[in-house]
Amino acid sequence: MISETATVSPVHRTLAAELPRRIGRQVTVQGWLHRRRTLKSVVFLVLRDRSGLAQAVFTGPEAMSVADGHPEETVLQITGTATANPQAPGGVEVTSPTVAALSGPAAPPPFDLYRPSVPATLPTILDHAPIALRHPLLRAPHAISAASVAGFRTTLDTLGFTEIHTPKVVASATESGANVFAIDWFGSPAYLAQSPQFFKQAMVGVFERVYETGPVFRAEPHDTARHLAQYTSLDAELGFVTDHREVMAVLREVLAGMTATVGRQAGEACALLDVELPAVPERIPEIHFAEAQELLAAHTGEDPRGEPDLAPAHERWLSQWALREHGSEFLFVTGYPMAKRPFYTHPEPGRPEYSNSFDLLFRGLELVTGGQRLHRHEDYLAALAARGESPEPYAGYLAAFRHGMPPHGGFALGLERWTTRLTGADNVRRATLFPRDLHRLTP
Amino acid sequence: MISETATVSPVHRTLAAELPRRIGRQVTVQGWLHRRRTLKSVVFLVLRDRSGLAQAVFTGPEAMSVADGHPEETVLQITGTATANPQAPGGVEVTSPTVAALSGPAAPPPFDLYRPSVPATLPTILDHAPIALRHPLLRAPHAISAASVAGFRTTLDTLGFTEIHTPKVVASATESGANVFAIDWFGSPAYLAQSPQFFKQAMVGVFERVYETGPVFRAEPHDTARHLAQYTSLDAELGFVTDHREVMAVLREVLAGMTATVGRQAGEACALLDVELPAVPERIPEIHFAEAQELLAAHTGEDPRGEPDLAPAHERWLSQWALREHGSEFLFVTGYPMAKRPFYTHPEPGRPEYSNSFDLLFRGLELVTGGQRLHRHEDYLAALAARGESPEPYAGYLAAFRHGMPPHGGFALGLERWTTRLTGADNVRRATLFPRDLHRLTP
Repeated sequence: MISETATVSPVHRTLAAELPRRIGRQVTVQGWLHRRRTLKSVVFLVLRDRSGLAQAVFTGPEAMSVADGHPEETVLQITGTATANPQAPGGVEVTSPTVAALSGPAAPPPFDLYRPSVPATLPTILDHAPIALRHPLLRAPHAISAASVAGFRTTLDTLGFTEIHTPKVVASATESGANVFAIDWFGSPAYLAQSPQFFKQAMVGVFERVYETGPVFRAEPHDTARHLAQYTSLDAELGFVTDHREVMAVLREVLAGMTATVGRQAGEACALLDVELPAVPERIPEIHFAEAQELLAAHTGEDPRGEPDLAPAHERWLSQWALREHGSEFLFVTGYPMAKRPFYTHPEPGRPEYSNSFDLLFRGLELVTGGQRLHRHEDYLAALAARGESPEPYAGYLAAFRHGMPPHGGFALGLERWTTRLTGADNVRRATLFPRDLHRLTP
Repeated sequence: MISETATVSPVHRTLAAELPRRIGRQVTVQGWLHRRRTLKSVVFLVLRDRSGLAQAVFTGPEAMSVADGHPEETVLQITGTATANPQAPGGVEVTSPTVAALSGPAAPPPFDLYRPSVPATLPTILDHAPIALRHPLLRAPHAISAASVAGFRTTLDTLGFTEIHTPKVVASATESGANVFAIDWFGSPAYLAQSPQFFKQAMVGVFERVYETGPVFRAEPHDTARHLAQYTSLDAELGFVTDHREVMAVLREVLAGMTATVGRQAGEACALLDVELPAVPERIPEIHFAEAQELLAAHTGEDPRGEPDLAPAHERWLSQWALREHGSEFLFVTGYPMAKRPFYTHPEPGRPEYSNSFDLLFRGLELVTGGQRLHRHEDYLAALAARGESPEPYAGYLAAFRHGMPPHGGFALGLERWTTRLTGADNVRRATLFPRDLHRLTP
């Protein structure tokens, strides 16, 4: 009447990457027919599996005819002998093979997936993402993303952080009134969360050190290579800091952990994309916003002093400067003017027009924003009053601060933006499996 | 002009749990004032930090008066000497202390956080979550959740899975027309995703083995102890399976990994909640749906044969039976009737009214649903036609299957439900930091 669950494996599958270790033995490989090459007296079938490519060689009219009948992208199982051949991918191929189809014959893909480069435009790739992403060059950024998130979490786990899962639907559009998506929540108005900011701060009161890796939503009306309406935010927040410097020190560890994990777990993807992983200096160079403006005024022929933010061109210049002067692809710019930071930002002691906040520039672009937050209830009330805002919509958020919160701070890193920079992609959509933006809601 | 980032730690903080290793030395502890006890000639301040409790002892009128001035939940920094005392928590206390407040004086919490049990109802707890969750008993389930997710990911990483991040906003309410939240997407209608089902299947075509840990949304009109409108779904999907048994074998590994990680990383939380971690058998017992119905008919005095699903009472009976007969708190029920499974479910070969699907029962409740999926394009068209559905709204989903997909399957595990069962909580909201449901959209 009852049986027990076992790992049922009627065939022992050998992955393509394992073939060199099985030379001389009978093997079964399974994968997508990546490329079929029919010559006069031989048919080569190259299978693609998650580990790489495996070539099988069919000779003789009957075997050749069977092999020739499968369109590319059909899922096949091939059994034969693993045989050394220096010309084959990985130095080994499957000889005397028999083949069976595990899927129906595949329809032609939107473009050739076997070509070394990608013969398709970005819209074609995005329209056909489930198939297009099978191309090794288009898949690779997502292997790098996965390794990056793993590195983010592992580093923070080691530092005593706790992972949290917070609501993506909120009652009021607090952090910024604009750019929110409205939802019908059982007949009541609600909004998609633009960040876990308020929740992660509240959870500092519970776990002291928390992180979340999850989706955030911005109703960005901009149709650019950098904007997404949903992206993956890597958020961290920690209590009992002296100021933003300790947050920056944690971020430095996180970047080192992410980079190392990418190198270790996504080395092949990096090689495929010619990714050069950045060195993360023991101490990332750091420059105050005011000093950055002095530097720009002295060297660029422009005078940005008085501006409350850095122009993209100035971010690029400062990145170049950090590389030249400090040999670093990363640069912390600290102390951004309060006018341009959210109301919960902690001002700089002694220079309250500046803040205890930072941006991290990486290869010319802002990658991370963070800083110390206010932690006293009365400071929040004063900050909101100074901006002419009522505390009422923030009541739930502010409650935690009435009951004792330590000095704390944190940061948020956009995963897709990180992967885009790392791979040198021309569009953040290449680092997003199924992008959502102003014009795109499918697939 | 430029300085470099360092780990700025003006004080070296000692965590409560580290105190026993620093006896005789000067220490600084930081945390929330968990409990203040004022006796005739001594004031005890017990601080709570992320590692546990630390007691400081103030004697003499002046010190006592200072210590007595801080309301509970105020964030304090206490410096003094770590001194052995068998009566103190952890066998050590801080003597000759000085104290400084790191927050303003805390307002009284909604209920006493220092009491060993929780003197508050669930609505009070949920209304004041940011403060209520500081209670060690209310925080503990979330430490168990965090460890569970870590175990889920680590196990799948080891098995060659790749983590993915998929859209939470979709163009059509495909998986089930009901219970979806509508969004205004730049003026177009859209919906919150009820599961990553379609995306994870498509990604089997790219990475073969994928997982996602993210929010899913159900506009559940039910106001019960089990239903949430947002929960965290732990999803996995793998290709090149023979049938659902290989999916079950992976799930078995995942459960073992989750349980082991909870034991290792959240042992204190388990001890606090008297959690007895289940043993995960090498082979989880398994019973076919039809046989389960025979068993129920023979032993329960009811005859469920002909019903397309199991009643909750029957799930409980089967769980008890598995414990009694097989010594297992887990039971796989396989082969659920196709009539009650989603259209993408693979039928059972030879008995097409049944399916290659399964539920995992754990301590009387369904915890996981999974199974083998259809993988041939024509099978999808036939399955939709048989249900009288048009393939048109599924076009994006179905595309992948025209281009070669291997036999595959997967499962989804609700994180909050898992934690609820593990901790024996009476309501899934106790395993959710900030629940979202029919009536609750804040905090």
